[in-house]
Amino acid sequence: MLINRLAIIGVGLIGGSLARALKRKKACGSVIGYGRDMANLQKAVDLKVIDEFSLTIASAVKDADVVVLATPLNTTEALLKSMRGYLRDDVIITDAGSAKGSVVEAARNTLDKLFPRFVPGHPIAGKEKSGVEASVADLFEGHRVILTPLPETSINALGLISEMWELTGAEVVQLSVEQHDEILAATSHLPHMLAYALVDCLAGMQEREEIFKFAAGGFADFTRIASSHPQMWHDICFSNRKALLNALDQFDEYLNKIRVAIREDDSDELLKIFTRARETRDRFTQMRNKLKNATE
Amino acid sequence: MLINRLAIIGVGLIGGSLARALKRKKACGSVIGYGRDMANLQKAVDLKVIDEFSLTIASAVKDADVVVLATPLNTTEALLKSMRGYLRDDVIITDAGSAKGSVVEAARNTLDKLFPRFVPGHPIAGKEKSGVEASVADLFEGHRVILTPLPETSINALGLISEMWELTGAEVVQLSVEQHDEILAATSHLPHMLAYALVDCLAGMQEREEIFKFAAGGFADFTRIASSHPQMWHDICFSNRKALLNALDQFDEYLNKIRVAIREDDSDELLKIFTRARETRDRFTQMRNKLKNATE
Repeated sequence: MLINRLAIIGVGLIGGSLARALKRKKACGSVIGYGRDMANLQKAVDLKVIDEFSLTIASAVKDADVVVLATPLNTTEALLKSMRGYLRDDVIITDAGSAKGSVVEAARNTLDKLFPRFVPGHPIAGKEKSGVEASVADLFEGHRVILTPLPETSINALGLISEMWELTGAEVVQLSVEQHDEILAATSHLPHMLAYALVDCLAGMQEREEIFKFAAGGFADFTRIASSHPQMWHDICFSNRKALLNALDQFDEYLNKIRVAIREDDSDELLKIFTRARETRDRFTQMRNKLKNATE
Repeated sequence: MLINRLAIIGVGLIGGSLARALKRKKACGSVIGYGRDMANLQKAVDLKVIDEFSLTIASAVKDADVVVLATPLNTTEALLKSMRGYLRDDVIITDAGSAKGSVVEAARNTLDKLFPRFVPGHPIAGKEKSGVEASVADLFEGHRVILTPLPETSINALGLISEMWELTGAEVVQLSVEQHDEILAATSHLPHMLAYALVDCLAGMQEREEIFKFAAGGFADFTRIASSHPQMWHDICFSNRKALLNALDQFDEYLNKIRVAIREDDSDELLKIFTRARETRDRFTQMRNKLKNATE
């Protein structure tokens, strides 16, 4: 048995799917859930996602050998603080947050001598629906989980959390905290900002009714991510503030190159930018297709 | 018979699909194609997209009652100029360009007293593949075709071109030239600039290899349009320069609101922007679903 007693803090899409995946592999003895909403926790028990639940953090974590935080990013520090006094000395703690620098800082500030037992993690998986009802055992299959261990992180703790995610069918990779935050800012957080800004911009235009009437499939693809959960993205922005502001600055330079080329009739430069971008995008597509074929 | 002799200038995806659609409806007597590439024109004849072709613009247009320009935007003025002396007095000319202000200006500069016979048009349809081999008779079915007639435009010419597009299964709508260019700048041209700039920006980052390795499905959706044809988009940018620069400026303001909110820890403002954008995006999705259901 990999984990005797697993505590899932926040039994939603991610926490619920992890519990389902581990149960399917018979990798944990019992799963206890903690959350603020008793009806949701009862539903999770009914769905057999968790075995039992607790409404106090103390009783949720006190016997757990692994504690997984799968809650909104802005709750991380307060939750770690509130569980601190009740954790076993040999506990292993991990999380699933989309930004790692702020989570690591929160863990460092609160966990004291247990900080080496904390393995920062981020499963790159999700779906449009949220909540425990949307959780499925195969959510992580074929997806990447990024772990960002620190020099202090216990090798044993890192090994166990790696093994845990591998059992869900995910590919586990290690990056530094800074790499993670820069990469996610670029590939996920920045595109979300652009989609939100574009939709908001178009809604503010004079021809807004006609604009939405004539917007076609490409626009629909492009702005799908602007339907993402506002509070979650609000939290991500502030949690990954530094890397995101940096990515926004860089993007601005590149967009401005295009703007200047158009404004100043610089035909060669504009064609060069578009050609280079298409080549890059095509290489990305090839890489994705290769990965897809490899996992099939 | 709606059209006795149809001349298609530029027998690619759009020109070819229009010819196919009209032939299927037995709406034209004969179709002559004009282009620069004889092999392509021969292929169009072999595929029965056109009945014959000409390598001189004069013989292509001289007996045509309808001339359709389906060529890259930057060729419009030169083509109109070269056909000017050979057109019948009762000819009707239309085009399929993605920008209308510059096309109308080109037509006004070249067609003189035939200007009222020119009906500016833009079918909002396409697919990833281009060329006559990709042309299909149902390309325009259920899509919109925007016509932007001027005060001088002949009512009869406008009526015939409307009927022509309706026969392809498209919904014909009229907008002013300015409305068209503003709307397309917002819904199509601006998103393409953002996708090109984003891909180019990420390719310029230090972690570029890792970035493309970790980019997931949302990023793929978002940047699909950055694989669009560089030369075509280069032409569109300069043809719709004014409206596009204006849209870029407006977008910049909205993106900056987000940046300032993140930088200055303005939690309320950021949540407000994201919530408003999601509501707008969701209304757009509902509108699209309603339209889809209506055409099913």
